[in-house]
Amino acid sequence: MPNAIVTAAIVVIGDEILSGRTREANAHHLARVLSAAGIDLREIRVVADDHAAIVEAVNTLRARNTYLFTSGGIGPTHDDITAEAVAAALGRPFGPDPRAMAVLAAHYEAMGEPFTKARQRMARMPQGATLIDNPVSAAPGFVVDNVHVMAGVPPIFQAMLDNVLPTLKTGRRLLSQTIHCRFGEGVIGSALAAIDKAHPDALIGSYPHYEDGDYWVKIVIRAPDAATLDAARQDVEAMLEREW
Amino acid sequence: MPNAIVTAAIVVIGDEILSGRTREANAHHLARVLSAAGIDLREIRVVADDHAAIVEAVNTLRARNTYLFTSGGIGPTHDDITAEAVAAALGRPFGPDPRAMAVLAAHYEAMGEPFTKARQRMARMPQGATLIDNPVSAAPGFVVDNVHVMAGVPPIFQAMLDNVLPTLKTGRRLLSQTIHCRFGEGVIGSALAAIDKAHPDALIGSYPHYEDGDYWVKIVIRAPDAATLDAARQDVEAMLEREW
Repeated sequence: MPNAIVTAAIVVIGDEILSGRTREANAHHLARVLSAAGIDLREIRVVADDHAAIVEAVNTLRARNTYLFTSGGIGPTHDDITAEAVAAALGRPFGPDPRAMAVLAAHYEAMGEPFTKARQRMARMPQGATLIDNPVSAAPGFVVDNVHVMAGVPPIFQAMLDNVLPTLKTGRRLLSQTIHCRFGEGVIGSALAAIDKAHPDALIGSYPHYEDGDYWVKIVIRAPDAATLDAARQDVEAMLEREW
Repeated sequence: MPNAIVTAAIVVIGDEILSGRTREANAHHLARVLSAAGIDLREIRVVADDHAAIVEAVNTLRARNTYLFTSGGIGPTHDDITAEAVAAALGRPFGPDPRAMAVLAAHYEAMGEPFTKARQRMARMPQGATLIDNPVSAAPGFVVDNVHVMAGVPPIFQAMLDNVLPTLKTGRRLLSQTIHCRFGEGVIGSALAAIDKAHPDALIGSYPHYEDGDYWVKIVIRAPDAATLDAARQDVEAMLEREW
């Protein structure tokens, strides 16, 4: 099935996002990267630094998606509990990983800094994990089953994602076309709904924009092949010309 | 119980966010506003324009929080299905609301534009809803039970939030203090964990920052009263002086 649909979800872990102190950035980056790769991001959840909340979100979303990503909560402090919660969710033993210990020990030795007990926390992983290289600050992420556990700091998250992307199955890549529409959604809504129904293989969305006091609507058509895309596009363009 | 904990969650509805075309902005704004009001935002979920996904998220999160907010999916096009899905989640009849019809009819008459069938979709609500005024583009949001259904366009979401904020119970407002720390999390992690344990009524978080090649950690202490805050702060400051 080369054209099977591949889906993903992300669980972002962090009190600092829920309190509004930090603005979340990784989910949006992931959405753009997966979209380009033909992988369908189905859900984003932001949960607190709370064991039960992480376990619940991880178990729900890994079961219904090809891939699950997590962001955040893998640093060296007491509130970094993601790795342990993921191990609990997967029912796997949890402890220091010798490969991660070696990577971190070498990193701190090269920096002339002590490999403290807190830093050693970052080597703890579920049994059976594959490491994800962290070229920024050494502490690795990991993959276990279909769960990718990655850092919350955006440049590290992005570097880890670059590293795992080549390992992912990519889905059918949808073609897309954007049509600029100067009529409001209230004007074109019914006609657009009829076109959407007439082209079940195309995804037709409309997105209102307000910019500099100007109002317009972006109509986005996505389809698995050029013929389907063209047919839907022609109907949208004819509708825009015909009706107004 | 004047100091009871008041919690909230938000469900953001929109394919355009999951595909990465649009960057979500309302959850972060809500987090900041609720935090200032002493309301604890516990979870953020972004789901697709999909009936079953919206119903599931609404029912799960409204049951476990004082308030639930939704953002998006209340425009006039076929992919705007939030109001109907919320009605289904709450098990309430769904149809045109006479007050909303009147507001919208007057709005389009004043603008000299037709009150189309697509625009009339925006007046449909669950039975028993209270309207939320929309000073930007008229189409109202609504409150039903503990669910606040609001627009996805950020200036409208923000205006609606301003309108509902005075109607919310606010929780205990936590005092907070931020301490700048030039040591990394790996250095202070264990000591900070011990302080966190010693002050169960205080919330102590640490947040790494990389800025212009410089690395530092923000330690944030939150507590319900000044005495608790001070005690935890003194321990953190003493730890920072003593250890290095």
